[in-house]
Formats: sequence, C-alpha cells, structure tokens
Amino acid sequence: MFEVKSTDLAGRIGRLTTKSGTIETPALLPVIHPSRQTLPAGTIKNLGFQAVITNAYIAKKNCSNVSRKKGIHKTIGFDGIVMTDSGGYQVLEYGDVNASPESMTIFQEEINSDMAVVLDQPTGARISRKYAEKTVNETLKAAKKTLETRNKKNILWVGPIQGGIHLDLVSQSALEISRMDFDILALGSPTEIMKSYQFKLLSDMIISAKKNIPVNMPLHLFGAGHPLTIPLAISLGCDLFDSASYMLYAREDRYFTDSGTVRIEDLSYLNCSCPFCSSHSLEDLVEKEKEERIDVIALHNLHVLMKTVKESKEAIREGRLWEYLGSKARCHPRLWEAFKSLSEHIEYLEDGSRLYKSRAVFFAEPIDYVRPEVTHHRTRLEHNIEFSKPILLLLPEVEIRPFYNSPLYLSISKVLMQRNKKVQVCFIIPTLGVIPLEISDIYPLSQYESSFKPDTCPDISQAINEDVERIINSKSIIEVIILVDGVFSRNLAEKIQSWKTISVVKTENDDFQKTIQKLIERLLMIDP
Amino acid sequence: MFEVKSTDLAGRIGRLTTKSGTIETPALLPVIHPSRQTLPAGTIKNLGFQAVITNAYIAKKNCSNVSRKKGIHKTIGFDGIVMTDSGGYQVLEYGDVNASPESMTIFQEEINSDMAVVLDQPTGARISRKYAEKTVNETLKAAKKTLETRNKKNILWVGPIQGGIHLDLVSQSALEISRMDFDILALGSPTEIMKSYQFKLLSDMIISAKKNIPVNMPLHLFGAGHPLTIPLAISLGCDLFDSASYMLYAREDRYFTDSGTVRIEDLSYLNCSCPFCSSHSLEDLVEKEKEERIDVIALHNLHVLMKTVKESKEAIREGRLWEYLGSKARCHPRLWEAFKSLSEHIEYLEDGSRLYKSRAVFFAEPIDYVRPEVTHHRTRLEHNIEFSKPILLLLPEVEIRPFYNSPLYLSISKVLMQRNKKVQVCFIIPTLGVIPLEISDIYPLSQYESSFKPDTCPDISQAINEDVERIINSKSIIEVIILVDGVFSRNLAEKIQSWKTISVVKTENDDFQKTIQKLIERLLMIDP
Repeated sequence: MFEVKSTDLAGRIGRLTTKSGTIETPALLPVIHPSRQTLPAGTIKNLGFQAVITNAYIAKKNCSNVSRKKGIHKTIGFDGIVMTDSGGYQVLEYGDVNASPESMTIFQEEINSDMAVVLDQPTGARISRKYAEKTVNETLKAAKKTLETRNKKNILWVGPIQGGIHLDLVSQSALEISRMDFDILALGSPTEIMKSYQFKLLSDMIISAKKNIPVNMPLHLFGAGHPLTIPLAISLGCDLFDSASYMLYAREDRYFTDSGTVRIEDLSYLNCSCPFCSSHSLEDLVEKEKEERIDVIALHNLHVLMKTVKESKEAIREGRLWEYLGSKARCHPRLWEAFKSLSEHIEYLEDGSRLYKSRAVFFAEPIDYVRPEVTHHRTRLEHNIEFSKPILLLLPEVEIRPFYNSPLYLSISKVLMQRNKKVQVCFIIPTLGVIPLEISDIYPLSQYESSFKPDTCPDISQAINEDVERIINSKSIIEVIILVDGVFSRNLAEKIQSWKTISVVKTENDDFQKTIQKLIERLLMIDP
Repeated sequence: MFEVKSTDLAGRIGRLTTKSGTIETPALLPVIHPSRQTLPAGTIKNLGFQAVITNAYIAKKNCSNVSRKKGIHKTIGFDGIVMTDSGGYQVLEYGDVNASPESMTIFQEEINSDMAVVLDQPTGARISRKYAEKTVNETLKAAKKTLETRNKKNILWVGPIQGGIHLDLVSQSALEISRMDFDILALGSPTEIMKSYQFKLLSDMIISAKKNIPVNMPLHLFGAGHPLTIPLAISLGCDLFDSASYMLYAREDRYFTDSGTVRIEDLSYLNCSCPFCSSHSLEDLVEKEKEERIDVIALHNLHVLMKTVKESKEAIREGRLWEYLGSKARCHPRLWEAFKSLSEHIEYLEDGSRLYKSRAVFFAEPIDYVRPEVTHHRTRLEHNIEFSKPILLLLPEVEIRPFYNSPLYLSISKVLMQRNKKVQVCFIIPTLGVIPLEISDIYPLSQYESSFKPDTCPDISQAINEDVERIINSKSIIEVIILVDGVFSRNLAEKIQSWKTISVVKTENDDFQKTIQKLIERLLMIDP
C-alpha cells in the first residue's frame, strides 16, 4: 500500500495506493471547500494534483444528503483521490464541535472517502502541558473509537499525532498511535508554528514523531502549504501535506514565490512562469475584480506549490536534497536556523542518504561539513577501517581525483610500493577529514567540490584533529610523516607533535620537484 | 536614453530608449536566427521579451536583399526592439570573416537595426597575451571606423570591450572605448568562460570593465544565458544580455532549471510551472519528435530565463539582491566561490546598495558579514562618528530593537541620563560590530535578523576587536566598562585589558535583575 522508491536525507519518494488510484509521494493535497469552492477542483486536477482533501465535518453540516447520495468525489467534482478531514481543525478554532468520533467515522464511510481522518483533539500551539496531555489522550481515545466503529475495508484511515510544542508528548503520542491499526499517521496542527516561521520547532516536532513511528509508515503533515515549509518537511520525511494556504493567502492578496510570499502591493513583477504570470503584467492582475483576482492568485500559488514539490522530488532522485534545502534556507533566517540545527540530527538523516549518488557533493560553508555524507565517512573510518602499519604518511589535498592518480602520489608511488607493508598513506581533506589511500575512490571521497578554506573554521579543524588523533593513537602506528604545505597542515603537525614521534617535511615555499625530492628522501630512510 | 531607476549591490533597474521603444533593464535578448529560426519571434515576444538580437552578418550572407528591403524587424518577424550583432562571434569561431567594420556599419543602418554592434575581434578565452592585445587594438580600430562610417542618428551603437582573461587589458579596453561616442558598451565573448562555470573569472572580467566605464553607461554581456550566470552578472551591474543558449541547450536535450541545467534523460519530473511543463508529463515531452521537442524545450528554457531576470529585478527593487544571489550561489560551488570573492569588491558593490531598505538584512553565515550594509556601517562608524566622552559602556546584543527600547537599556537609562556627559553607550553585535546607542535605530542597525554564533568565526571576532580597539584608542576615552555575558564578550574584555583601564561587570550566570543591579552599582560609581 505504501512503497518507498527512493530516499535522500530523511526525504523519500513513495507510492501510496488508495481505492481511487495510486499517488506518488511526497504529495500536497489542496484543500477543497465542500460547498463554497470558487476554484473548480477540475482546474486543480489539471495542474497535476492527483489528490485533494476536503472537510467531512463541513460536508456533514452543509450538504450531508448530497454527499451521502453522490459520494464526496462527485460532491466536490474531483475525479481522483479524495482525503477527508473530520473537523479537528474546527475543534481547534471554535472549541467543541457537534460531532463524535463515531459519527464522523460512519459519515466518512458513507461519503466514500479514500483516506479518512479520526476526529481528533488538536493540541495547536498552546503552551499548557496539561492541555496538551489532555488532547493527546482524547485523540488516542477517538482513534480507538474510530477503529472500533469502521466497517469498510477500502478506506485508508489516518491516525493523528498530537502534543504540539511538547516534544516528549509528540513522541509518546506517535509511539502509541503507531501501535494501532492505521494506514497513515498525521502530525497535528502545527499551523500556528508554521505561520510564525518557527521552522526549528517544526523540525523538532516532525523528528520527534518520525523517530517513534515505523519507517514504512506514511506521515501526513497537517496544514503545511508554504513554499519554504514544504522543502523542509519533505527533507525530514513527511510524505503528505494538505493546505488551504493557496486560497487563504490569495484572499489577502499574497502571492507565493520560490522564496516565500509577497503582498501584491509590494510586488513589482509577476516573477513566475505559470500560464497566467507569463502572459500577463502585474497591472493586469491588480486591475482585476477582487473575486477574480483571488482565484487567479490562488491558481498561481498552487503552481508555485506544485513546482516546489516537484523540485523537492527531483532533488531526492538526484541525491542533492541537502543542496536544495540549503539554497531555500538562505531565503529566510528562521529556515537557515532550522537547516543549521539539522546537525543535531545527522544520524537520523544519514539513514536515508544513499551511499552512492550520481552527483558530486558540494561544500560551500562550514555547515556542509556536517552533511550526512561526511558523517557517514567519519563513522566508517572510525568503525570499519583498521590501521595496521607502523608508519602513517599524511599528504595534503590535491586536485586530481582519485588521489592515487595525482602527480604527487604517482611521483612517490614506487618508493612507497617498496615500503608497502610499513607505510599507511592518508590524505587530509579539510571538508571530509582523513582519507586512506585505499578507499579514496569510494563515493564521495573522489566526487566532491569544495570552495572553502579550513583555516577560517575552528570547528572543522578540531574535528579533523580528533580523527587524526584517534588514528595516531591506534596501536599500530609508531611514527608519523606529514607533508606541510600551508597553515592547515602546519597547525596539524604541531598538534601531532604532542602525541607521537613525527617527521615534518616542510614544503611551503617549494616547487613541486623540490617537494617530491624532499619527500622521497624522507621515505628512503624507511627500511623496505 | 539610459536612466537608472533603482539599484542594489552593483545591479540596477534602468530604462533604455531606442527608436522602436523603451526597454526596462536588466533585459535578456534571445538570439533569433535571421533565416533558420524555428521558434517564431512572435511567440518569444508573447513571453514578455520586448527585445531580441539577431545576426547582421548572417542576414547579409543569407538574405541581404530581403533584409534591406523589408528591414530587419520584418525579416525576422519581430515587432519590438531589434539589436544586431555583426559577425564578431563568427570571427571567433571561424577566424576571419568576409566583411569589414565599414560594410557592417552600412548594412546595419540599411536594415534599420535599433542597436548595432561594431564588427569586433573577440579575444575569447585564449591565453596568449599577445593575441589578446591584438584583439583589443583591432577592436578599437574597428570601433573608430564604425563611428566614422555611420550616418543615421537613430541607432544606438554598441562599443565592444575585449581583453578576455587578461584583466588589465579588459580595463584598458573599457577605458578607451568608453572615451568614444558609443551609446552602449558590451563585454566581449566570455562564452567559453561561462560554459566552463568559471564564475569567479567572469566576475573579475565584469568588474574590470565596469570600474572603467561611466556609471550611467549601459553594459551588455555577450552570450550570457545560463540560469546561474544571469543573477551574478546582474548583481555585478550588467544591463543587457543576449543568448542563443535557450536553443543551443535545447538541441542537446538540456532543460533549464532554477539551479542550472539537466539533461532530459536525467530528469524525473518537469519541475517547472511554465504552460507546457505544468500541463504535461515528462513522458509527453520525451515522446515528442526531435524537432518539436527542441522547440518545446527551447520555449521552456526561455520561460526559466525570463523568470530569472524578473526575480533578479524584483530582488533589486526589494533590496535583497544579496540574499537572492546567495541562494543561487548555494546551487553550484563555482558560483559560491564567485559569491565569496565579492568580499574583495565590497566597495564597488556598496555604491549601489541603498542606505535604507524596506526589508531586514539577513545574516546566515560568515560570508554575510562582508555584505555592503555591514561595510557601510563600519565605514560610517570609522569616519563620521566622533567619540567625545571619557567612559565607554559596552553592552551585549539584546532582542528588542531599537536597542534603546530594550529592558536592559531602560533599566539603566535613568542612571545613565544623569551621567549623560560622561558615558558613551555602545552595543556589540556579532554581525554588525559596534553600534553607538544614538544611531541604533538607523537602518539596518535595528532591521536585521541573524542566526549565527560569533564564536565560530575568528574573522568576525577579529573585525569587531579592531573596531573596538580603534574606538578605545580615540583621544576621549579613558575608561571602559563592559558587561560580560558569554564567551564572545569575555574574549573581548580580555583583549581590551591590554589597551585601556577596564571594569568588567560579569553576569554570565546571573538572572536579569542581578545583572541590572550589578551594572547600576558600577555606574553609580561614576560622578554625574
């Protein structure tokens, strides 16, 4: 029913099968109003949205007979997959609602929903722990009642996770609901948190939920429909989203862009290539009557969201979700803060990051030093690689990859071959750390591009020093030879001096021939 | 004829008036083939391209009679502004051409071009300095001949700048051509440099040219039509671009995205919202016949370029070109390298960066510390602000802006008022440096958002230390009081000790009330 096809970071491409068809995830489900939708659901489908969500509670209130008779698909005019929410949002907005989990279960079956949600008690962004605990418990009770009430086998039931800003409650809620018989789980109502750009808190909530549910369980994020939220939520492993944002923002004359939202009055151009924007001027839009303008902006907003989802999926396929999220993160300091805080969760992200990718890894700034590919290499170095020779030769980064094809290595390879049993060669790379010669062609140790200097980042130098120290303190190594060609290796050599016997081959102002000559002279001193 | 309307970094929005209409710059002029264009010029105009460029040399060779008779506009079927190139590119590709600067001048007048280019000798990316010198001199001679030959007053003539990778020759070429009577200048032929993503070299070439031509002179960049090149070139002050890239890439099945180009075979989705991509699947595109597919991809590519130009213009209007370029730069390490190297040219970029913007300045990573707004503040601090009081009180960054509205300041303001003539209050902000209380509400000193820690960046601490040292060593200051609340201020306090008498008010583990109490106690020791 849910199959994962491709992953990067914690993001994944999946296939979710419902009775009305299969949808590729991550997928955004636009919210369709059951009775007051102005932008036709058919128009939305033509944009490529294969699934939508509508509100069963409102349908029950406003058009229950029609919905029961025609089914929800025909009621809203959508020939695809229809998910129904069940009034939880209304509980959050207006307090109690005139419905029970049981009645909403029966109604969602009657209207033939494809994916149906338990009538939950959303925590929202409320601070009170007591209130949050109550909503978690009430939601679990409602979930139980729903599962007891349901009759049809062909509906995917969605179990809500609550807890709000209380991360331990989110974890607990996720753990308990994942033990019940749901097909999909959903993280409840972080709308207010997203509205106020609390991306770091949102990340923590998603990760708290994800860590407590099975990997193959699809996770829906309620209310996520902002161009910056989607890449983040996808990177953290959310599979489904729903949002009325395209319409809610449009009503306030707010226009989505790749980097956020802008009020029409603050805009100078329609900087978008969607059918409307690429064939009209900003003046054309502004001159429209309010009602028509709302629908035009809403449609544009949906185009931006669709593009964002597709770009995120493309980035997963290409294995460059880190780059994509990083580029988005530079658009807003709160998103950047969340991006930076991913460093606290690299183990979580590492699982999904493939070991081999078709694209080189890019290093731009210190933050990139914590990307999963680096962590993975460092873990492998620490746990899987044995150092068994007595002499360690540390060489600096060279341009040619793999490093064993570099002029530097080739010039000394003959003398090294003869001392093959004694000398372990490693390259010291500011971004990736220590790279033993033997594995230097394994992804990404030859497949990376970098544009930063290690001297400017004490954290990175520190991490490399620790790697080197651990290797040097391994039982086998009794002597270190280091080629010093700049500040970085000079500092490293100074550090090593305090741990081990060391020979420093200084070549800071030498030409290549001189460097090789010095190095060979030193290596010749080792008995073959 | 050319008016600058709005600026940010070295980028600007301008209006260029030709006999066929006015165009807003920066503008990309798609290349139209005079006789073999498959994508109709009218279709391109409907995308919002008000101007195109075509090749007068090819028109002369393939369809000279028609062009002379109907004019170049009707020949290519474009009812807008038509610029003509004159064969320089063919000189570069095939060596000499069968035309002279004089004959191309006459022909471009005959076909009624709106903007016409001197038949130049492009340097290309050749290494030989001798060759580069020759092309610079030949181009200057051709320019002179063109100006002597021209008869019509209603054509804007474009003077080419050559020199290639030899930056001093680019400077010299720019200086000399800008002394002649041209309406527009154009930087010649960095096509190969752009193709190989040498963005830093491209930046250096553009800056070398720009620094030697008048500010109000429009600058065209030949051959720039890549989604990553355009934001960079615009940020550095290029006003016009021309490119056949949309079509050349399409012929190789290469699809533009916001972050570069992808081969169709490597693509998984049409992640774009242009009319074709938002209503078709990737399979629809792949199944098309080669010839039709080329035109479809070319049209899509033009949509991406148009969006990129519009986004860059919007970023200039909003004063967030730095953020926009930074976000693009994270898509490619070579572009990031160029973005980082802008720090060497901040003075150049500072001129165009407005002093007041409607948006807050974002600080994400150390690179943002060199953005023009920071440099501007530091220059102002160094040259325009006098310190005339004997005691300097250094306070840490607080959340409330302007800082004088913060609880910290308000709690001590009474005692400070009484010592008003003796104490100069400054806030020490990791990103912006030293902020005297009196100017703390001036943009961007209250209008910034930051998400980085100063301790991780020695360069930044160093710069702040230098600012503080200069202030402390000014004649008036005899004593410093510093509130120490963390590593950053503790290190600073240690530094200050070596320069001046200092009182350290330590509050690292105190609550707010305790901090205020300690600070007031210390301030009360000063005679009012």
